Amino acid sequence: MTTSAEPLQLVPIGVIRTPWRRREEAPRQGTHSEVVCTIEVFAPLRSALAGIERFPHLIVLYWADRAERTAPRSRRFPERGVLATRSPARPNPLNLCVVELLKVEGTTLRVRGLEALDRSPLIDLKPFYRELDCP
Amino acid sequence: MTTSAEPLQLVPIGVIRTPWRRREEAPRQGTHSEVVCTIEVFAPLRSALAGIERFPHLIVLYWADRAERTAPRSRRFPERGVLATRSPARPNPLNLCVVELLKVEGTTLRVRGLEALDRSPLIDLKPFYRELDCP
Repeated sequence: MTTSAEPLQLVPIGVIRTPWRRREEAPRQGTHSEVVCTIEVFAPLRSALAGIERFPHLIVLYWADRAERTAPRSRRFPERGVLATRSPARPNPLNLCVVELLKVEGTTLRVRGLEALDRSPLIDLKPFYRELDCP
Repeated sequence: MTTSAEPLQLVPIGVIRTPWRRREEAPRQGTHSEVVCTIEVFAPLRSALAGIERFPHLIVLYWADRAERTAPRSRRFPERGVLATRSPARPNPLNLCVVELLKVEGTTLRVRGLEALDRSPLIDLKPFYRELDCP
């Protein structure tokens, strides 16, 4: 068991390719974007993707590697703490997007609904289930 | 920017308290459980929680610290890769639950809809937005 004092290590499982290099260029929320983006899962994880093509939507977790981690309050909504916002600036800059899965070719996924900056590290993919994820 | 070769470090932001000590005792999916559980956010992050009480549902990310990380295939569905399941056994054992927020008292949250094992490290809380999170 891990205690709260130990750091927990993530391993990137791929990289996200999008047209956006800077926060100001990217849509605020990918859900509202029609842009098709690419998720490149690292080749050794090909077997871990088996069967993913059957899901029309995926939950994507990525590391917002250019986000600030230390501010407790939202810059956009100063009355709110960062945990009460979806800003990437938070203690663990993990962003979550529900994307539409358009195509799987080997370890490359084409998806719609991301707002990640180009080259953001991919942390996890999960199938989206309406009965679990929409209360 | 982080390259894919560097490990990424999470900081636990709290701890989850549930009645379940072993996987076999916990519900498979918290959504189907009526049990009220407790999320204890670490005291220094109190300000980061400001305003969270306004959200009826939260996305909880926690570290499934007792899960295996190396198997590429699901044990329950051997034809599927772990990234095509919601199993906690995955390269980055981050589990995601959408919970009902019942009460906030200081840095203690009472929620319904978790399946985490007792003392799982809390990694993130995000407000749930139907228009973003339910395609």
